[in-house]
Amino acid sequence: MTNIPNQAKQVVQLLQGHRSIRKFTTDQIPSETIERIIHCAQMASTSSHVQAYSIIGVTDQDLKRKLAEYAGNQTYVETCAHFLVFCADLYRLNYVTKSKGVDVTETLETTEKFIVATVDAALAAQNAAVAAEAHGLGVVYIGGIRNNPDKVAQLLQLPEKVYPVFGMCLGYPAQDPEQKPRLPQSCVYFENGYPDIHTVAEDLKQYDQEVKQYYIQRTKGKRQDTWSDMMVKTLSTPSRTHMKSFLEKRGFPLK
Amino acid sequence: MTNIPNQAKQVVQLLQGHRSIRKFTTDQIPSETIERIIHCAQMASTSSHVQAYSIIGVTDQDLKRKLAEYAGNQTYVETCAHFLVFCADLYRLNYVTKSKGVDVTETLETTEKFIVATVDAALAAQNAAVAAEAHGLGVVYIGGIRNNPDKVAQLLQLPEKVYPVFGMCLGYPAQDPEQKPRLPQSCVYFENGYPDIHTVAEDLKQYDQEVKQYYIQRTKGKRQDTWSDMMVKTLSTPSRTHMKSFLEKRGFPLK
Repeated sequence: MTNIPNQAKQVVQLLQGHRSIRKFTTDQIPSETIERIIHCAQMASTSSHVQAYSIIGVTDQDLKRKLAEYAGNQTYVETCAHFLVFCADLYRLNYVTKSKGVDVTETLETTEKFIVATVDAALAAQNAAVAAEAHGLGVVYIGGIRNNPDKVAQLLQLPEKVYPVFGMCLGYPAQDPEQKPRLPQSCVYFENGYPDIHTVAEDLKQYDQEVKQYYIQRTKGKRQDTWSDMMVKTLSTPSRTHMKSFLEKRGFPLK
Repeated sequence: MTNIPNQAKQVVQLLQGHRSIRKFTTDQIPSETIERIIHCAQMASTSSHVQAYSIIGVTDQDLKRKLAEYAGNQTYVETCAHFLVFCADLYRLNYVTKSKGVDVTETLETTEKFIVATVDAALAAQNAAVAAEAHGLGVVYIGGIRNNPDKVAQLLQLPEKVYPVFGMCLGYPAQDPEQKPRLPQSCVYFENGYPDIHTVAEDLKQYDQEVKQYYIQRTKGKRQDTWSDMMVKTLSTPSRTHMKSFLEKRGFPLK
């Protein structure tokens, strides 16, 4: 990294060095570290200052065990030191406006506010992830909690107008995995307009080969998937088709 | 900050020091800095490696002027050095799976995949924001591009299954605003379950007073809004009620 300002170097290395960690030591995380991570999450941008998210920190071993099961038997949800559930939260806004005698239900039921709350939760989460990694912690996002969002919501006593967007395992790493190669920058970043995708078709093909080599190395040849192969496998069958009706039940009718 | 590991200190200060910047110098951003910021964005986590987002970097002055107008006459969209539009992108996945002869339309039309793509875009964006600030740049998120998402999509030639989630202004700061106080941690972070909201009612009231003092100081008494007042103003009238039909037209029927 040439010509990079010194102050930026450490941060860039941290961000570019991210790998998901799924094996953790049994070391606990000091509570002041958690507090600092959450403070970082809170300082992320939020649409019109609505702060439409909440974070549930799960340390209770029984709750973690159940969440691991609900997430599709992802054991690291149970074995990580601290599990965070990031929720899109319009309930608090409903409460403070009602306290002022104003009914804003119509607004809160729009697709727009669903986007706002989901994005607010995600921005806070990514700040938390970066802060955690700066403390030497490993993290992995757990979209799997959307496998059983009803059960997760019940277990964590989420009120209406709150939905669990994803979880995040935090813990001290007990593994040192390789980075999974990302798409070439030419395929995700475009100047002044979206290009004809055929202009990046060659780059996508090269990326397919890169991902294939990554899997061959990692699995000693057992797995030889290209990225396109992975995407076909992942997308061939619709997953979590319950999300629409789940959200409707939770007070997100996406109007 | 006591007991904080030295390596974490800089990152925590960066994240906790965030303020939105809306006034920029006329200095341009070196292209290698943009490239590095986008690389950081790309290394954020992504659901099942789908990488369901794209970023349009807008430097063309005419495009920026139009985007500023579409975003509700937010001049900083025009005056910032570099404007980024973060898009949820299922089009690329549609392309690579079709290239393999597989039709995954049913999957891509689910609410679940809408969440995945929106979250992917947001995680990438927050990494970009952090990387930019580490380089001494100022940033502000622009949800305003959802005021006229149709026009934005047309202007940037977004294909179907791609929608602009938000924009982000990047530039060297020409202002040094105060931080807007966030909700007390007790109101957004909960251990092992969502509490009865009445247990934090007092904290919410105190926060209302804190926000009021912030506005009194900042506007020399002209503005005296509490947070609850702000929320009533912001939420009384539904905004961007076109999002549902816009998304449907773009290939996100939220099934």
